[in-house]
This record gives sequence, structure tokens and C-alpha cells, in this order.
Amino acid sequence: MEFKEIVMSRYAVKKFDGRKLPASKLNELMELIRFAPTSFNLQPYKVKVVSDQKTKDLLQKASWDQQQIGTSSHVLVFCADTNIAALIDKLEGALLKSGASEESIKGYVQMMRDFEKSMDQAQKLAWAQKQAYLALGNALNGSKALGFDSCPMEGFDPKEYSKILKLPGNLVPTVVCPVGYAADKPRPKIRFEAEYLFF
Amino acid sequence: MEFKEIVMSRYAVKKFDGRKLPASKLNELMELIRFAPTSFNLQPYKVKVVSDQKTKDLLQKASWDQQQIGTSSHVLVFCADTNIAALIDKLEGALLKSGASEESIKGYVQMMRDFEKSMDQAQKLAWAQKQAYLALGNALNGSKALGFDSCPMEGFDPKEYSKILKLPGNLVPTVVCPVGYAADKPRPKIRFEAEYLFF
Repeated sequence: MEFKEIVMSRYAVKKFDGRKLPASKLNELMELIRFAPTSFNLQPYKVKVVSDQKTKDLLQKASWDQQQIGTSSHVLVFCADTNIAALIDKLEGALLKSGASEESIKGYVQMMRDFEKSMDQAQKLAWAQKQAYLALGNALNGSKALGFDSCPMEGFDPKEYSKILKLPGNLVPTVVCPVGYAADKPRPKIRFEAEYLFF
Repeated sequence: MEFKEIVMSRYAVKKFDGRKLPASKLNELMELIRFAPTSFNLQPYKVKVVSDQKTKDLLQKASWDQQQIGTSSHVLVFCADTNIAALIDKLEGALLKSGASEESIKGYVQMMRDFEKSMDQAQKLAWAQKQAYLALGNALNGSKALGFDSCPMEGFDPKEYSKILKLPGNLVPTVVCPVGYAADKPRPKIRFEAEYLFF
């Protein structure tokens, strides 16, 4: 499917039909998310994948009872990771393991550490959340590319989500993306005119 | 091009070859950005399109002198729009103009107004910026889909950008995306393992 067709046919599904995605499809989607663009290659987020009905029902209650959650195949909960320092260590380790010399990555690692030190806790969260939205974009377009559907959702209670999913303090539920097969139909896309949006 | 190929071959270009994109290609890219997923259909951002060399050179100086800017064909400056209330009015007008009845959109419009009122200025900016990143995602994948290249950039001085581009106070430069034809080669993508990223 051409990217333009993906962009134009993707929509925010309000109800799924409950069918389960094949494991192979879900794995393909995860690869598309994993290789999303990400600043410094740092991927300051993790994605909780929920498939059991009981947990989905709890999440739905913490999401204004929106049925996209309960009727989906899987719910992806994009969690910003505010422990940026640990991610820098992890990335440095991965680079060294991949064969890079300490000398060759020194400047890059220092740049990341300086960036991390320049942010307070709120700024770290805001930055990580923006990165999570880039990954979300690949989840939304990727679902359509792979032949199924999705819905980006901001209407949920992050604190309730943290409790239900027993998340550690550094992982902040940021945006939710149920995926599966649509049981509704798209409405025409409403967008501002190009002459307004671009200037 | 399949979406997977787009995702795997796209990379952050460090130097472009200076060639200009045909206007038709740029227009196609703008349509892919315009139809990016966006919360409430509100598109709380505008995109400044810069093609003249003099302005690009000024922007490069305000971007740690990174040559992606000056060597690109066009620079897209994604600006978050913090005047959410005005956007809600604009969207309401567009919906009525498209034939929707006032009654049918009343609940939707009220939901947006309540959402807008629930946020302080910093929260409005943070929300609009996250939405801008969804649009950025389509710019990055869209460029590759259309046969050219791009680079997402956070390393720039938003205040300097505001001055150079004479932006009104409600438009906050959030992320920059030069586009054009690459004059460098991609390096292997480094990403955390799936077993870590998904849990």
C-alpha cells in the first residue's frame, strides 16, 4: 500500500470487532514502532502490550469507558521513560557492544549527558512524551499498512493506568493505541486548508 | 514503497546536496502532513516553509550551524499553536460550513472547549507540541515515500527562530525538518531490543 493511501484511509476507530491479530502481524507492528525516528536513538519510552480481556476492561473503565479499548485485539500503552540517564548508559553499552570504540562515541555520549543534565524532571517528561508520539505515528500508519486498524487515545487517567499496569515511577502513561479490526466505518476527514496550515 | 521499507530506509540526513524539490513533490508532502492524525482534528500547529537561501542560512546559525539546514531544499519549521480556543472556533466554523448542523456538533465542540479550559498555558503548549510530532512523523516517512530525504532536528534556538521568522507569540517553533536530497549515507540503525521496548 502506498504511504498516501495509508495516510488517507487510516482513521480513529471507535469500535473494534474483538478479533485477535495473528502474532506475526503484531510482531511486524512492533518492529515498525521500534524503528520509529527517535532523538539521539534514545527511545525514551516503553510500550506496554495488553491483550487479556480482564485488564482491557479495567483500562476501559479508566478511559471514560470508551469501547475501543475493550473491543480491541491488543492495547498498546505508550509510556514515556523519564529516567533518561539510565537510557544513555544503556545506549552507550549497546554501541560499545556493536563494536564502536569508546573514543569514537565519546563526543556523542557527552552531548547526550549534557542534554540530560540541562532538563528538570518536567522537561524530561515533556521531551520523552514528544518522542513517544513519533513512535505512536508509526503504530497508527503501521497498523493500516499491515491491514488492520487503530485508534490514538488521550482520554484516559494516567494515574489509574499506572496502578492497573503496576508501572514503575519512571514510566508515565502518555498515549494509548488499541489495535485490531474495525467494526465501524470512517467519516470524511476534516482538516484545515493547506493555505492556512503552511505559511 | 511498502511502509516497512520506508521505516527502515529513512534516516536523519546530515547533509543535503542542495537540489530543489519539484513543487509537485513538496505539495504532495504537505498533503501527507496535513492529513496526519491529530487529536479532535484540531491541528494545533502551523508549518513555516522556508526555501530562500538567506533565511536558511540565518536558521542554520540558530541551529548550532548544522549544515542540514543550509544544504536542504526546503526547511519545514513545525510551530505549536497555543491559541487553542481560536482553533476550536475555526474548526467549528469548518464543520458548519461542511454541512453539519449546530445540534449535531454541539457535544463535540463543548468537549473541546472543556478540554481547552482544563489546561494552563504550559499544558497547552505541551499538548500542541505532541500533536506537532505526529505531523512531523508523516513528514519524515512521507519524504522517503516520495523519493527524497529529511532530518528531524531539535537542536535549535526557538527564540532566534521566532525572531528570524517574525512569528506571532502563539506560534512556538517546536521541531525542524529540512527536506531535500541526501548527500550522505545512512549508518546502521541502532535500536533497543524488542524484548526490552515492549513489556
